[in-house]
Amino acid sequence: MRSYLDCYSCFIRQALDAARRARLDEAGQARVLDTVLAALRSFDPSRPPPEMAASFHAVVREAAGSDDPYRAEKERATREALALYPDLAARVAAAEDPLEAALRLAIAGNVIDLGAHTDYDLPAAVERVLTQDFAVCELPALREALAAAPWLLYLGDNAGETVFDRLLIETLDVPCTYAVRGGPVLNDATREDARAAGLDEVATLVDNGARVPGTVLELCSAEFRDLFARAPLILSKGMGNYESLDGRPEPIFHLLQAKCPVIARDLGVSVGSIILARNGS
Amino acid sequence: MRSYLDCYSCFIRQALDAARRARLDEAGQARVLDTVLAALRSFDPSRPPPEMAASFHAVVREAAGSDDPYRAEKERATREALALYPDLAARVAAAEDPLEAALRLAIAGNVIDLGAHTDYDLPAAVERVLTQDFAVCELPALREALAAAPWLLYLGDNAGETVFDRLLIETLDVPCTYAVRGGPVLNDATREDARAAGLDEVATLVDNGARVPGTVLELCSAEFRDLFARAPLILSKGMGNYESLDGRPEPIFHLLQAKCPVIARDLGVSVGSIILARNGS
Repeated sequence: MRSYLDCYSCFIRQALDAARRARLDEAGQARVLDTVLAALRSFDPSRPPPEMAASFHAVVREAAGSDDPYRAEKERATREALALYPDLAARVAAAEDPLEAALRLAIAGNVIDLGAHTDYDLPAAVERVLTQDFAVCELPALREALAAAPWLLYLGDNAGETVFDRLLIETLDVPCTYAVRGGPVLNDATREDARAAGLDEVATLVDNGARVPGTVLELCSAEFRDLFARAPLILSKGMGNYESLDGRPEPIFHLLQAKCPVIARDLGVSVGSIILARNGS
Repeated sequence: MRSYLDCYSCFIRQALDAARRARLDEAGQARVLDTVLAALRSFDPSRPPPEMAASFHAVVREAAGSDDPYRAEKERATREALALYPDLAARVAAAEDPLEAALRLAIAGNVIDLGAHTDYDLPAAVERVLTQDFAVCELPALREALAAAPWLLYLGDNAGETVFDRLLIETLDVPCTYAVRGGPVLNDATREDARAAGLDEVATLVDNGARVPGTVLELCSAEFRDLFARAPLILSKGMGNYESLDGRPEPIFHLLQAKCPVIARDLGVSVGSIILARNGS
């Protein structure tokens, strides 16, 4: 997905939020914003939003002298999700359709997003998403694809959400490779965050080689691009991955909540919708 | 009030909204945003937000070749408010405390604001504000000031809201001078909009000589500044006027809804609060 003019105010807001989370003082925050204003003037809007986000998060890390300003927040989110895990696993096991329940929970976990929103209520999201109607639901096609796929590539999103991904992977009866970002950016999951959620016990962990809150293939490692091209089935979590991969020809299913008006419009749904969409459908 | 870094994303959002209301195509909208990004880089944040807003609205008008892109919207808002007027006047007349009722309604009318929000529900705002608790209420001090003042200067805000101002002015037993902006900017009231609301029948109309969605005295005419300095009592409507005049030594009472988090924080109240505050109190 290209970037829209509506994204610009959101870039500024997110950059300021990132600068504050990195504990920059007001002068530092102002310097970050000035750099972002300049970067936006030369930004090519045909590029997906996560590419701009990658750039301002790098500016914030540099200004703050911190490689991972979201570390404590990510650890907290993972702990909170792990505390919910036994109950969620029991609910999936007891569900009439365990796959659908686990998919719904994986979408509920997508509420853990410090880009689109700065706070969230995870238990409330779980209850809502378990009963909410899907705005787009390609579950029959996904079932078919899962039955045929010898393995799948799972594109992770945020730390904490990883715990919900683990539950879905445990429910799928398909060998799984779980991809994380190439390094800390926003609250997105890295190898370390994935291990903290126990994903190394249920999947092969890889990183995509890029420090981008999405999967911008041009910025990923050659190794990851090769894996991506070979994957018989790809499950993609969240808005950042959707924004980077929308419209690509690979067999991708997107699991996400449409948390911003731009994405919602792009998908033809209302804000707050839950989505299980096949790429290009 | 100075501008805060939180205002920057809002400036971008408002400029884009203004460009769209002026029916600029996407290339035109992008050119406006680029100009605003450049202007923000050299903006002095010690200046109040309406000064920045004045600058990007001028950019939009220039790009659109339209002196008043909000004209139809302002006329619509005035018509809607005039249709409510007879009922509102009857409610004020029947109220136990007509002054308080008219003050509340004048604050309700402040929901007509195309800067902070892009849509609003006027009848719903009326019902809410008639019963909502004030977060700040200097009504006893205002009563005293009204009893002592030989005349008052009333600083208008938006078109349509003007009708509610008229009702308040009719309720006050004090000669009134009603100040509008020096020319069309955002949906703020001009002389023409004030006349459409019937304000010329209940007050002396003046304009402040500045095309700013607020009252930035340095940009107002010498004549208006003189009037302002001589006024024994000033009633100021809305956020733009508050942002421009907060902290000044003149005897100003502010009537507004705190529609944005920055103003709410500055006032020490929550978003959505209604305020009747004396300057400096």
